[in-house]
Amino acid sequence: MVDLHTFKHPSVAVINGDHWFSEMNADSFPGQAFSLKIKRILHHAQSEFQDILIFESETFGNVLVLNGIVQCTEKDEFVYQELISHVPLMSHPAPKNVLVIGGGDCGVVREVAKHIKLGFVDNVTMVEIDDMVINLSRKYLPNMALPELFENEKVNFVIDDGFKFLKENTNKYDVIITDSSDPEGPAEEFFQTNYFRLLQSSLTPGGIVIMQSSENIWLNLDYLKQLKNKAETVFKNVKYTQCYMPSYTSGQLGLLVATDDEEKDLTRPLRTADNERELFRYYGAKIHESSFVLPTWVASELSQK
Amino acid sequence: MVDLHTFKHPSVAVINGDHWFSEMNADSFPGQAFSLKIKRILHHAQSEFQDILIFESETFGNVLVLNGIVQCTEKDEFVYQELISHVPLMSHPAPKNVLVIGGGDCGVVREVAKHIKLGFVDNVTMVEIDDMVINLSRKYLPNMALPELFENEKVNFVIDDGFKFLKENTNKYDVIITDSSDPEGPAEEFFQTNYFRLLQSSLTPGGIVIMQSSENIWLNLDYLKQLKNKAETVFKNVKYTQCYMPSYTSGQLGLLVATDDEEKDLTRPLRTADNERELFRYYGAKIHESSFVLPTWVASELSQK
Repeated sequence: MVDLHTFKHPSVAVINGDHWFSEMNADSFPGQAFSLKIKRILHHAQSEFQDILIFESETFGNVLVLNGIVQCTEKDEFVYQELISHVPLMSHPAPKNVLVIGGGDCGVVREVAKHIKLGFVDNVTMVEIDDMVINLSRKYLPNMALPELFENEKVNFVIDDGFKFLKENTNKYDVIITDSSDPEGPAEEFFQTNYFRLLQSSLTPGGIVIMQSSENIWLNLDYLKQLKNKAETVFKNVKYTQCYMPSYTSGQLGLLVATDDEEKDLTRPLRTADNERELFRYYGAKIHESSFVLPTWVASELSQK
Repeated sequence: MVDLHTFKHPSVAVINGDHWFSEMNADSFPGQAFSLKIKRILHHAQSEFQDILIFESETFGNVLVLNGIVQCTEKDEFVYQELISHVPLMSHPAPKNVLVIGGGDCGVVREVAKHIKLGFVDNVTMVEIDDMVINLSRKYLPNMALPELFENEKVNFVIDDGFKFLKENTNKYDVIITDSSDPEGPAEEFFQTNYFRLLQSSLTPGGIVIMQSSENIWLNLDYLKQLKNKAETVFKNVKYTQCYMPSYTSGQLGLLVATDDEEKDLTRPLRTADNERELFRYYGAKIHESSFVLPTWVASELSQK
């Protein structure tokens, strides 16, 4: 156990005697901040790849923070994990082989495993570069990194670089879910288009990929527009889907979903689950469709080239 | 001009040399906080009714704060103002007489005035108890409290208590928009049902009322359920509609919309504007419909009695 009173971290401040985690210093969100009150620090470590902080919050359950940015909280993680998983899986006629890139908290794999039980998915492979995130999630986020996932022979965990893995596995996956942040820096543009091409080459014909867009409609709509336009230079059919959750800055999270099947209507699920309310907390057939309905100004901006 | 460096307010703190407004101490949002970086304080006053703070933020434009809670920011106010106005107005076949209760920033009246121009609304009356909010909004939020609204003879401003005004004006309004917070305290339950009855008696037959629900799905779903059930003891047809905006805590804001017309489908607009993209930034026919699509767990909870 880490002693909260002697704990030092650039994202943790003492305010009126209480300890708060805050994204106040994040360059990505200038002028605004979301903060969570800390009950206790569960773990803090520097892995080979990043700063990992896990704390128990006052009102959002356990929280995973990577490099000072909230990745998930137990209170609202299901919103994002369900949307990113079920939108592509429910849009594909036969998603037998599924790949997840990133997503070390294992919440996405938890959702994909529901489709194994339903008989639609044969196997899922998760490629995560940082095994420390997986191990800490097993310990502190057991409702995401469910123990049963690690005993399921249809669920494969690979500790590797996602780019390298994609290069080595072409024409293989019906659905790819990329739950990792975008590369940043000078090679960004080159990198992105290359990444889209790599994803494309790993998909089977008619395959569907979904990617965290990393920027939301409130922070940088121009960037999002450019990203979508770039994806459209690679894929024939690209759509933007979104969900809302309190623990992400600006409360909105967007995803690009893409396929080379021009006829495919990604906005409508091919299947519905009879027991929607048992299987899902957030997702449902109507949520699938409405997640593609964008505010008028956003729809207008994103439809421009 | 208020000197930021000597300015004292319970919601303003200096962090790493910068001044931040924060809802960190708000009892309504335990354990979480949304903060905005302050560029300069525009006005601070104690009116007869409340603490009024207006500041220019770093990235959200000018911000109106009442009793420590953000009421609107120039960046995202249109989301809420458009949804609360256009959902009832577009659902009513002939909304000739419109009443707005509260909404001192005048953003709702600005939206209703669009329907005067379109020829659907004959007149709108805004009843606000605190004229200081209106006067300060005219000065510091001129894109909400548009100068032209105060020269429009079809727009009436009344400085009065909303409850008193409703009692004095029965069977008069086709649409009522209540943009004020709920009363809190021991008389809450009695008050709410009474308030619903007052609203009902001021509506014309087939009239529609929309009310800020004051609680959102993430903070207190049980309370919201009780509130909806209470509204259903008064009105024959009650629905919950929602929007998402970064400056409201948990990023989500819900509204109850109600009518005594059992046959009315409140979730579908009766009219669409040909020039949707010129008239609205957020609202549109598809947004109207999808604003009623709730996450599976919320839909399930709210459908229970």
